[in-house]
Amino acid sequence: MMTPSYPIVRLRPKANAKAVRHGFPWVYDNELVTDRRSRNLIPGTLAVLEDAERNTLGLVAVNPNSRIICRMIDRDETAQVDQAWFAARLTRALQMRERLFDAPFYRLIHAEADDLPGVIIDRFGDVAVVQPNAAWADLLFDALSAALIEATGVTTVIKSATGRARSLEGLDNESGVTEGAAPAAPVPVPMNGATYMADLTGGQKTGLYFDQRPNHAFAARLCKDVTVLDVFSHVGGFSLAALAAGASSALAVDGSEAALALAEEGAKATGVSDRFTTRKGDAFDVLAALAEEGEKFDVVICDPPAFAPSKQSVEAGLRAYERIARLAAGVVAEGGYLVLCSCSHAADLAKFRGACVRGIGRGGRHAQLLHTGFAGADHPLMPQLAESGYLKALFFRL
Amino acid sequence: MMTPSYPIVRLRPKANAKAVRHGFPWVYDNELVTDRRSRNLIPGTLAVLEDAERNTLGLVAVNPNSRIICRMIDRDETAQVDQAWFAARLTRALQMRERLFDAPFYRLIHAEADDLPGVIIDRFGDVAVVQPNAAWADLLFDALSAALIEATGVTTVIKSATGRARSLEGLDNESGVTEGAAPAAPVPVPMNGATYMADLTGGQKTGLYFDQRPNHAFAARLCKDVTVLDVFSHVGGFSLAALAAGASSALAVDGSEAALALAEEGAKATGVSDRFTTRKGDAFDVLAALAEEGEKFDVVICDPPAFAPSKQSVEAGLRAYERIARLAAGVVAEGGYLVLCSCSHAADLAKFRGACVRGIGRGGRHAQLLHTGFAGADHPLMPQLAESGYLKALFFRL
Repeated sequence: MMTPSYPIVRLRPKANAKAVRHGFPWVYDNELVTDRRSRNLIPGTLAVLEDAERNTLGLVAVNPNSRIICRMIDRDETAQVDQAWFAARLTRALQMRERLFDAPFYRLIHAEADDLPGVIIDRFGDVAVVQPNAAWADLLFDALSAALIEATGVTTVIKSATGRARSLEGLDNESGVTEGAAPAAPVPVPMNGATYMADLTGGQKTGLYFDQRPNHAFAARLCKDVTVLDVFSHVGGFSLAALAAGASSALAVDGSEAALALAEEGAKATGVSDRFTTRKGDAFDVLAALAEEGEKFDVVICDPPAFAPSKQSVEAGLRAYERIARLAAGVVAEGGYLVLCSCSHAADLAKFRGACVRGIGRGGRHAQLLHTGFAGADHPLMPQLAESGYLKALFFRL
Repeated sequence: MMTPSYPIVRLRPKANAKAVRHGFPWVYDNELVTDRRSRNLIPGTLAVLEDAERNTLGLVAVNPNSRIICRMIDRDETAQVDQAWFAARLTRALQMRERLFDAPFYRLIHAEADDLPGVIIDRFGDVAVVQPNAAWADLLFDALSAALIEATGVTTVIKSATGRARSLEGLDNESGVTEGAAPAAPVPVPMNGATYMADLTGGQKTGLYFDQRPNHAFAARLCKDVTVLDVFSHVGGFSLAALAAGASSALAVDGSEAALALAEEGAKATGVSDRFTTRKGDAFDVLAALAEEGEKFDVVICDPPAFAPSKQSVEAGLRAYERIARLAAGVVAEGGYLVLCSCSHAADLAKFRGACVRGIGRGGRHAQLLHTGFAGADHPLMPQLAESGYLKALFFRL
C-alpha cells in the first residue's frame, strides 16, 4: 500500500505544542501558521501537523473556516483514512457499548472521546443517525457510512445535519436518509424497562437522547408506588422509566405537542397509559399553576433545555435554574425528592448546584443531596476536554 | 410537656450569621462569644444559638473543646432532644434507604446530611454500628441507641469509638457492644450479587464500607468474561462484585492479611473461590512486579487509602495518585479498563482527575473517561458542605 502524501501545516512558535503532544485534540486558528496555501485547503483536508521546529505531531483534519482549525485524527501521520480505518475505530467503540448495554440502543460515537473528532452517531437497533459535525467527516461521509454498516450491521443510515456545530464549521444543513429505508413510524427504544418512541426523521427534532439513561434509572428507584411530576418531559424520559418501575402516577409537562404525543405513544407501548397524563404548557407557568392548585408530588424532576448555553449567558442561566428549583421545590411533598438537571456546558457543577440550593432555600425548603449523576458511559469524555461534561443531574431529598 | 430550658450562646458580630441562617450547620470557635460560662459548658451541652443581635438561630450542641464549637441540632430551639426526637430523624433516614435498597445493609445515618451532626450509623441487618463522633451524641448515646432499636428493629448495637473525628472532639476511644450480643463471626453482607464478610468487632478495622457500592456495580458491568486486578482490595469490594457478574478471574492485592482472609471467605460465600486469588503485599511493589512479569488484565481497579487526607498533604497525595495511575496503566490490556479511586477530601475531582490523566500519559497510554462515580446515596451530602464529597471513582478505557 502506498503511503498517502498529505500536505503539511505548522504550529506557530507560541502555540502550545506540548498540550497537543500530551493529547489535546485541537489547534485553534490563532495557533497555526496560515498562508495562502493553508487558507485554500478544502475544509476537511487531512494534513500532517508539525510543531514550529518541524517535529511531526500527527495527522489532522484542517478546516480554514473554523475556529478549531485542526482536529487530531491519528497520532500516526502515515495513517490511511479509509473504510478500514473507520471500521477499526467504530469496532473499538462498539465493543465498549456491547459490554455495557443489553440491546443495541446507545450513542455509538461521541466525537473526540471516541477518536472520531466532531462525529456523533446514535444507534437505534438497525438504524444509525450520524451527525458529521466537522468538515472532514462530511467529506469522508461515504467511507464512514460504509464502515458503520460493516462494523455494526445497521441497515439504515440517516445523516442529521441540523445543529449549531455544523454552522460553526461552515457546513450545510441537508439531512436525509443516505442508506436503506427511512423508518416508516417512530422507532420503539427499550431503556430502563420502558419503551420510548423516537421520531428519527420527523421535522420536530423529537429524536431521543441517550445521555440521561443512568439518571432516569436512578430516579426510577425513588418512584415505586408514589406520584411523579416530570417537567420538560420531552418524550417522557423520566416519567416512563418511573412508571415502568412502579410509580403510582406520572404527569409529564412539556411545551411541545409532538413530544407529548410520542410520550403518550411510549406509555402505551410500556403498558402504563392508565397511570400517565400529560399537560402542554410553559414549565414555569405550569409549576406556578400546580403550586396555586396546592398540588404535591412525591418526586419532581426538571430537565430543562440549556439555560446557559454560552459563557455570556451563565448569569442569566443560573437565575433561571434557581427559579426552576424554587418553583419545583414548592410542589414536592414533605420528605419527597427533587431532581434538577442541567445540560449547560457553561454552568459548571458547583455553580449549578449553588443555584439549585439557593432556589430550594428560597422555596422555604431544606435539602440533602443524595446523588450527582452525569451523562451515561456511552457519552465518554476526553479527559483533556473536561468542559465536555455538560450534563449534570442532582438528586435532592427535601 | 415543659419547654426545655437551654443555656444561650451567641455569635460574635463578625460571624457569618447569614450562612447559619441559610443552612450552614457549624459555628467555628472564633465565631462564638466565649466567656467563662460558655467555656465551662459540658462538651455536648445543648444550647440556644443567637446572632449578635440576639435573634434566635436554633438549637445547637456546644463543644468548647472542638474547633467546631457549635453544631446545629434543630432549627426549632424549643425542641426536646429525647428518644422520640431521635426516632423521628432515624425514621426519616430509614425511609430513604428502604426506598433505595432491597436488603437492610447500608449507611443509615451520614452525619450532618441526615440531620444527626457527627453521627455515623452503618446497618448490617440486625446489627448497627454507631460512631458518635461528636460530643453531644456521646452524651445522648442511650437515647440514640434506644431510638435506633425502636425505629429499625436492630437487636445489636455496637459503639465504635475509633477514628480521628472523636479525638478532634476530645472524646475517648472506648468501643464495645452496648446492646444485644456481639456477632460471633464475620457478618455476611449481600451487595451487588456478591456476599461480603464484615468483621464488625475485630481489632483489625476490617469492617465494611458501603460507600463504593455503585462504583462496584459499575465496574462489575465491565468485567463479564474478563480478567480483573483489584489493588488495595480490602475485603474484596470490587473483585467479588466482578466475579459475581461473571469475571473469568480476579486477583485481589492488599497489605492486610486479615482483609484478604475475609475476602477469601467472601469468595466462598459468593461461590466464586475457583476464580479468585489473593496476593499480600505493598500495592506499588506488586504493580511493579506484575508489570515486570508481563502480566495484563482486562480491568484494573485501584482503590487506595486517602493519599491526601489533609490540605498539607495534597501535593504529595496527588503525586502518589499519579504514580498509582502510571503503574496500573502498565498492566491494563489494550482496550481494557482502568478504575482509579480517591477517598481524599483534600484532592478535589479536577485535581484527582488531572493526576490520573498525567499518570496514564506517563505510562504511555491514552484514555477515554467513561464514568465518574461518587459515594452511594446512603452517603448523602449536605449541599452547604460540598467538601464532604470525598469519594471519587474514575472509569477510564485505555
